[in-house]
Formats: sequence, C-alpha cells, structure tokens
Amino acid sequence: MYAIAIHGGAGGLPARGLSAARQQQYREALAAALDEGYGVLEHGGSSLEAVIAAVRVLEDDPLFNSGRGAALTSEGGAELDAAVMDGSTLRAGAVAAVRHVRHPIELARRVMEKSRHVLLVGAGAEEFALEEGFELVPNVYFRTAERQAELDLLRGGRSVSELMPSSQGTVGAVARDAGGNLAAATSTGGMANKRPGRVGDSPIIGAGTYARNGVCAVSATGHGEYFMRLVAAHHVCASVEYRGVSLAEAVRETLHERLRALGGAGGIIAVDADGRISLDFSTEGMFRGARDSSGMRQIAI
Amino acid sequence: MYAIAIHGGAGGLPARGLSAARQQQYREALAAALDEGYGVLEHGGSSLEAVIAAVRVLEDDPLFNSGRGAALTSEGGAELDAAVMDGSTLRAGAVAAVRHVRHPIELARRVMEKSRHVLLVGAGAEEFALEEGFELVPNVYFRTAERQAELDLLRGGRSVSELMPSSQGTVGAVARDAGGNLAAATSTGGMANKRPGRVGDSPIIGAGTYARNGVCAVSATGHGEYFMRLVAAHHVCASVEYRGVSLAEAVRETLHERLRALGGAGGIIAVDADGRISLDFSTEGMFRGARDSSGMRQIAI
Repeated sequence: MYAIAIHGGAGGLPARGLSAARQQQYREALAAALDEGYGVLEHGGSSLEAVIAAVRVLEDDPLFNSGRGAALTSEGGAELDAAVMDGSTLRAGAVAAVRHVRHPIELARRVMEKSRHVLLVGAGAEEFALEEGFELVPNVYFRTAERQAELDLLRGGRSVSELMPSSQGTVGAVARDAGGNLAAATSTGGMANKRPGRVGDSPIIGAGTYARNGVCAVSATGHGEYFMRLVAAHHVCASVEYRGVSLAEAVRETLHERLRALGGAGGIIAVDADGRISLDFSTEGMFRGARDSSGMRQIAI
Repeated sequence: MYAIAIHGGAGGLPARGLSAARQQQYREALAAALDEGYGVLEHGGSSLEAVIAAVRVLEDDPLFNSGRGAALTSEGGAELDAAVMDGSTLRAGAVAAVRHVRHPIELARRVMEKSRHVLLVGAGAEEFALEEGFELVPNVYFRTAERQAELDLLRGGRSVSELMPSSQGTVGAVARDAGGNLAAATSTGGMANKRPGRVGDSPIIGAGTYARNGVCAVSATGHGEYFMRLVAAHHVCASVEYRGVSLAEAVRETLHERLRALGGAGGIIAVDADGRISLDFSTEGMFRGARDSSGMRQIAI
C-alpha cells in the first residue's frame, strides 16, 4: 500500500466564489501535482521524494499561495516559508522569510540534508542557498497581479474572498511509500498582508508539518497562528500515538474542537502508518487531492 | 501553591570546569533571577509576569547565553531568539534572529500582546520593536570577550568546555501562580558558531517552550535541533495529558529515551498543574533553580 495526499489551501468560498472555468483550472493543477507525487511512489520512490515532487509542482503554479503566486506582505513583497520532514529518521529541514528561492521546499530539503540545522531564516537561509548552488530569482518573480489586487483590497479593509479563493492557502503533501516510510512537506507565502518577518505554522516542525514512521504524517493549512499555539501537526500525531484514536478522529478533534475553541480555522491532510488518508477542514472548503495504490483517486474543492 | 523554576543552560562539565569563585558567581546569578520571579508570585503576580521577570535578569547577565553574553554566530555577531507562552489563554509570542533588542523576551511578549502574529524574525521583528517604542542597542552590546574566545576556539575545531561552561546554555523559566495559571519563557543566543539565520528550539512554540493550563509548562535547553525534531516541550505536555504519566516521568522519557535515541542531549525544566517542579538533564549538568510556596528553594549546577 502506498498513498499520497495534497492540499492547496483552505479558506472561504473556494467553490462558490469561483467560475466553472477557474474551478477546472484548480482541479487540473491539483491533479498534476497529485499524479506527479504518486508517480514517484509508483516507481518505487520514497515518500520524501514524492511529497517534494508534488509540492514543487504547486510552487510553480501561480494559482496557489506558494512559490510563484505567493501572498504578499504588507510591504508588497513575497516572503516564503517551507518545511519537510522524513518520518523514517525524524530528520527535518525548514526555511522561513526567504525572498529569492524559486522552490523553497528544495531549500528546506537541503537544510535537512546538508546543514547542521533544522531551520534557517532570511538572508542567512539565502546565503546557504547560494553556497549550495541554488540560483536566486528576483522577488518580482513570485508576485502576480492577482496577489497585488488582493493586497490592495486588504489594505483597504475589504475581505478578499470574492477575488481570491484562498488568501490563506498554503500547499502541502503527505505520503506513505511502499516501505512504510512517512513524509510531510508544506510550502507557503504565508498570510496575505502579513508583517515582513512574520513566520507562520508551515515551516514550524510540529505546527504545520510533522511526520513520524509508525504514527502519521501531517500537513496543515489555514490561520497559522492558531496551528502554532496548538502545535497542531504534532498534536495529531501525539493523539494517534498516545490516545489510541484513529487518524481521522485525531484530525477531527484537532480542527473542530481544539482549533475552533481558540477561534481558528483551517485544514489538515494526513496519512497514517497503514496508508489511510484523512482530509478534513473547518473552513468552507479546501483544495485537495488523494490517491493510493488501491486505485482510489480524488480531487476536490 | 505557587512555584517557579529556572535554568541557565545545560552542557558539559559545568561544575568540574569551573573555579569555586566562578561557581559562586553562577549560583548568585541564578538566585537573583529565581528570587526576582518568585517575588512576583509572592506578591500575587501572574506566572506570565514571573517567568518574564526571571528571564530578564538572566538576559542582562553576561554569564548566560541570552541577551548580553550571547553565543556568537560563525560571523561573530549575536542573533537572539526568545519565546513566551501563557498557558491560561494558549497565547504565545516569539522572536528569532534579532540583533538589536536588549531584552528579546520583552519583545516576544509584545508580539504576543500587540501583533496579530506569534513569531517575527530578523529585520521585521526589529521594525515591530521600533514601532512599539523599544530602544535598539548596537550588536556589540551583546558580545563579550569570553564569547569571542569561545568562537575562536570553535573555529579552530576545539571543544570549548574547558573555557565556557555552557556553550549551548539557553535561559528559561516556568511558573505556576496562585491562581493555577502556567507560563513558560525561554531566551537564547543559540548555538555558538551557528550559521547566521539559524533558529533553534527556544523560540519555537512546542519545541523549546510550551505552557497549557491544567497540564504543564516547559522550557528546554540543549542541542536545539533535536528538541525541534521531537517537538520536545509539546511532547512532554502531550505525555502528561494523554498518557497519564507524571510530569517527572514525561520529562525523563523525553530526555533519556526519545532525545537520546536521536543522539541529542540537553535539559528540561517544567511545572505541572499542581505546582510540582521537574528539573532534569541528560548532559553532565544544568544551571538551575527552583522555589515554591512550601518553602522549598534550591540552586544547583
């Protein structure tokens, strides 16, 4: 049994606010990322390779709030966060507040594999990127006209749900490979109109991203501050490990009880040690996809 | 019952490598911070006020790796991290990679109380500090001759235990006030010779710092990357909440089983819902102190 799930953000009105043509674009983009990651698993690749492959596709796609098309800070720039965790070794790598790295998820992986550290931020992360041979891109590469319009609306005090389906929409993937190894990856531009230097839950190991073989792998999306205060991804894993509840129940309780009690909302994708996938959200919708070796394949908004 | 515990770092040989006079200096410094925090509790102050008061004292003291006297990066600068969490509301604030804020723990508190965010890093955190009226200090304020010598030794490939007692030594405090509220605070200069932009466990909610009323409050010190991969502080709390083990057992298992299995070492201070304190470490020693309203008061290295 091998399995992968992806998300492209949770938020308000993703289906209702989108034209049929636009919905179709999202479905196709999600399918492309899902199948890219699934292909890795199908060819015997690791869950780590699979989640990175899927997230890379979403980082390249300006429809999603990660890499190109990232939400913009209050100063109009893009600041990107990403994390990856290998459940087989509990190794992890993350970057935050990087401005010139095309694929933050690749840099997070490099931090995991080549540095002595887990999390690098800002200019120090980019210095490491250059040492590792990453080609930097100008910040304008990430910025799209739609994200600029979103920021203008937010600055004017307006909600943006009529324009963008997912201003909080992070991307992520979780997978179990045929060897039973679990992995999780998350990448985001963060909250639209955030302060420069704000770091959300995505690159925080335990908050937005976690994986532990034999337990589960988790990637979250939504209002990051609430996920950080709950240590949501680790809370899901600890619930599975220590309370003996199913992954679905652990995800449900985290989102619909703990997170709600704080006033937060969002979505979680997760896969357990047997490859069973949970996709859940407390927002109106979540861009998501799941596929496993039993033949199940779904894309939904 | 009210109680407070503090640490000033865990590492190699803190007692063996120190002269009697130097040990006395450390004991006096720990006592000053402990009593400062305890005084807040004694006068009816909150656990949040108490942990911040204790950490401020340690930040000012160049004996410890936080604020003045912080360990230096590979480029010779000081980059400071801190976090605070209020267990009564699960609110939290943190800063990382700040270079000009005299009391990073105060800025972390301000992030919690005045921003919409939990974690601010780098220049963005300092922009927020200026907006909030913090006076910035030059980076040289934090740097001491001893830390420069430590860095020189590390660059030369030598161990530093003969010189500095606690190159990994972070400071932190946990407390329970008379109202039963729990709080935790941690502040550090991070690992000596770290990469600029490296963020350790201290400012990561769930890794180096966590507090939840009714469960426990935790502050960690040691090799931060391992604490991040374990989500150690939250793991302690989840163990207490879900496995029904005592706080002492949860701390023991985290340090001596989970952390050791990864190859990491460090120390943890924690207080449970009833004000029972745990101080444990897997290094050779830990600068620590504890005091409660039963009359117990201890300082140890």
